[in-house]
Amino acid sequence: MTGEQQTREILAELLREFHGRGWVSGTGGGICGPADDGGLLLAPTGVLKERVRPGDFFVVDPEDGHVIRPADDPALRPSECNAIFGLTHRQRDAWSVVHSHALTAVLAADLVPRLTDHLAIRGLEMLKGIPGVGNQDTHLVPVIRNTPRESELVEQLTAVFDDPRFATASAVLVRDHGAYIWGDGVWDAKRHTEVYHFLFEATVARRGRQLEG
Amino acid sequence: MTGEQQTREILAELLREFHGRGWVSGTGGGICGPADDGGLLLAPTGVLKERVRPGDFFVVDPEDGHVIRPADDPALRPSECNAIFGLTHRQRDAWSVVHSHALTAVLAADLVPRLTDHLAIRGLEMLKGIPGVGNQDTHLVPVIRNTPRESELVEQLTAVFDDPRFATASAVLVRDHGAYIWGDGVWDAKRHTEVYHFLFEATVARRGRQLEG
Amino acid sequence: MTGEQQTREILAELLREFHGRGWVSGTGGGICGPADDGGLLLAPTGVLKERVRPGDFFVVDPEDGHVIRPADDPALRPSECNAIFGLTHRQRDAWSVVHSHALTAVLAADLVPRLTDHLAIRGLEMLKGIPGVGNQDTHLVPVIRNTPRESELVEQLTAVFDDPRFATASAVLVRDHGAYIWGDGVWDAKRHTEVYHFLFEATVARRGRQLEG
Amino acid sequence: MTGEQQTREILAELLREFHGRGWVSGTGGGICGPADDGGLLLAPTGVLKERVRPGDFFVVDPEDGHVIRPADDPALRPSECNAIFGLTHRQRDAWSVVHSHALTAVLAADLVPRLTDHLAIRGLEMLKGIPGVGNQDTHLVPVIRNTPRESELVEQLTAVFDDPRFATASAVLVRDHGAYIWGDGVWDAKRHTEVYHFLFEATVARRGRQLEG
Repeated sequence: MTGEQQTREILAELLREFHGRGWVSGTGGGICGPADDGGLLLAPTGVLKERVRPGDFFVVDPEDGHVIRPADDPALRPSECNAIFGLTHRQRDAWSVVHSHALTAVLAADLVPRLTDHLAIRGLEMLKGIPGVGNQDTHLVPVIRNTPRESELVEQLTAVFDDPRFATASAVLVRDHGAYIWGDGVWDAKRHTEVYHFLFEATVARRGRQLEG
Repeated sequence: MTGEQQTREILAELLREFHGRGWVSGTGGGICGPADDGGLLLAPTGVLKERVRPGDFFVVDPEDGHVIRPADDPALRPSECNAIFGLTHRQRDAWSVVHSHALTAVLAADLVPRLTDHLAIRGLEMLKGIPGVGNQDTHLVPVIRNTPRESELVEQLTAVFDDPRFATASAVLVRDHGAYIWGDGVWDAKRHTEVYHFLFEATVARRGRQLEG
Repeated sequence: MTGEQQTREILAELLREFHGRGWVSGTGGGICGPADDGGLLLAPTGVLKERVRPGDFFVVDPEDGHVIRPADDPALRPSECNAIFGLTHRQRDAWSVVHSHALTAVLAADLVPRLTDHLAIRGLEMLKGIPGVGNQDTHLVPVIRNTPRESELVEQLTAVFDDPRFATASAVLVRDHGAYIWGDGVWDAKRHTEVYHFLFEATVARRGRQLEG
Repeated sequence: MTGEQQTREILAELLREFHGRGWVSGTGGGICGPADDGGLLLAPTGVLKERVRPGDFFVVDPEDGHVIRPADDPALRPSECNAIFGLTHRQRDAWSVVHSHALTAVLAADLVPRLTDHLAIRGLEMLKGIPGVGNQDTHLVPVIRNTPRESELVEQLTAVFDDPRFATASAVLVRDHGAYIWGDGVWDAKRHTEVYHFLFEATVARRGRQLEG
């Protein structure tokens, strides 16, 4: 089994796991990982993500998004996340990016006033799960506005990657939509995905409680 | 394996998945899909839906609901959803309809004042999962009153299907009861079922938060 | 496979399913079903319920609770639910009783003022899942006080079974503790268990919302 | 299969189960159990806990934490819980300790004012799941402050173990972090882990409701 073949199987398995947790659903959400030839394995668009098979991934060029190798099934088209995944790879050296449609990500972004561009998370041991962050730090997660099409998020994301306040962020929240979460490799992206969903859920639960009290 | 045999197996598998998520439970809820001969495969009534087997489905005529082919087990009777599924097929060209008993559907209908006949959903990327709807649109889901027997919902449903405000709706909420959700085929109905449950849950969570704030 | 052997396997499977849903946990909760010889199959006490095997059940006499046939493992002792399950059998002709430790049952009983002896449930289609109850009925579920030992609940339960207001109830809530839920046979008890947990959860969610509003 | 080999398999299985329930996630959380030679089996640090295999455990000396036998994979390092697990073993004769990162543990500690050092739990049948505690007792769970590194919790834990108010506690809550929960053996620790998570969740739900009311 080649490295890429194993990665394809792990990506399909992670999509099933994330679907079971409500992080991808109804064809929403996505994932990418490293291919053998410097390309990115990219899930197809418009399909039930928990039923993606190893042969359903495209290999795309992370520099410009063009398709290097298509999916086995000619009816499939590459995910709309293509431009965002490539940008994240180039700006953060990330070989794996998860796009979450979790409700908890939507509710976490709801906590942030419209004119504020980040969610501040503090006072949680799980912050240690993000590289370069300790449990005494205040961690800023950038928050951007949603756009009619996914590819139109690129402009805001470019500004986020240039902003030194977000140097340690391994995630971006998109209002009314979800989050992009990344890591050096597939297992790092998986770990960060769990950590950020915990941080979002904890922040929503604590702020909700404060509002009530 | 014929197309119908595969559909029977998928319908049984989806009932197990929906049961695991609390969308059908305690014999409540149901599903239909396309049979080979222009009929509708219909789950039986009064049974635990997660234990329905491929041979337990009836084939009924979507024009008048009469049984074309019975279930293998002569003790079974066709679901009370029969009249509603047929109406939805004739009015919306839907070959698959899901009847959900999810608590989140009941709570979403609770948000709608008694004299209002719809739930307005806006500001969510997941709206894109409904054909003809974008993430900047306000999507109206019709809400009808519950009746002592399921077949008595037909009159209200007929009015809903005639109402141009609900042209893009692929779901109807029934107060104190649940929802009917449909699609062209089985996978479309499955996708819409996930999307609408997400939309209901998100709307309940956001409105609850507003009430508290 | 004899009828009893199959029942033992189903009871063990249901305990695993109920554990997965949080209805039995930490050795709490239990179940009984019909044995071949007019006895009741009774789970052992003090064991992890999701790991009970078919040979771990006792057969007890539903009239007086004495052990007719022990579990295969001589270290096991019969559940403390013995007296309650027998009483329920004699008063309601129930051959299967589930004892739930679900948090939702505790929170549902919390809604009932201390001097009131029942929870009134109305306005839910799922009420139809209880024999003799329609979706327009107000269904009264008796609520009793917890006692230091489980067997001491018998006195209050006897009064409940004699009370004509509770003629259609297939469940009793025990404050700070959980619920007993029964049916003619194992599948009836399973269906009622799902239905009542839905009714409890819906009532808790609706009342919580009213308190906030 | 030796006793230790079986324990290694059970520990790996429990980590998968706990991950599925959100009690360990994102490499956070951990577990230990008895080795054949008086040592403690200790999970590795910085790995996805649901993917730990039987050969991944270290055997450490519970007196001073030194590694008696390493994990099969030389790239692994022993968990940071090492010092805490050893201390708990020596002070409470516990051969198995679970370290939970559950959100419900964080929220339960949030209920305790900053200058108070315990959570009082009462009025729940599930209290019987803790040795020496009845359902009429008020059970005190010690609460300690989080520290930058896990090993720095030892000083506060030593004080907790010396405090006669906490003689029956089989758990300690760590603010902003989670909980340590122990038992004589692996199955006792598993049972207590379920019981305490139920007690935390019930207490959070009940207090939240009081705040709203």
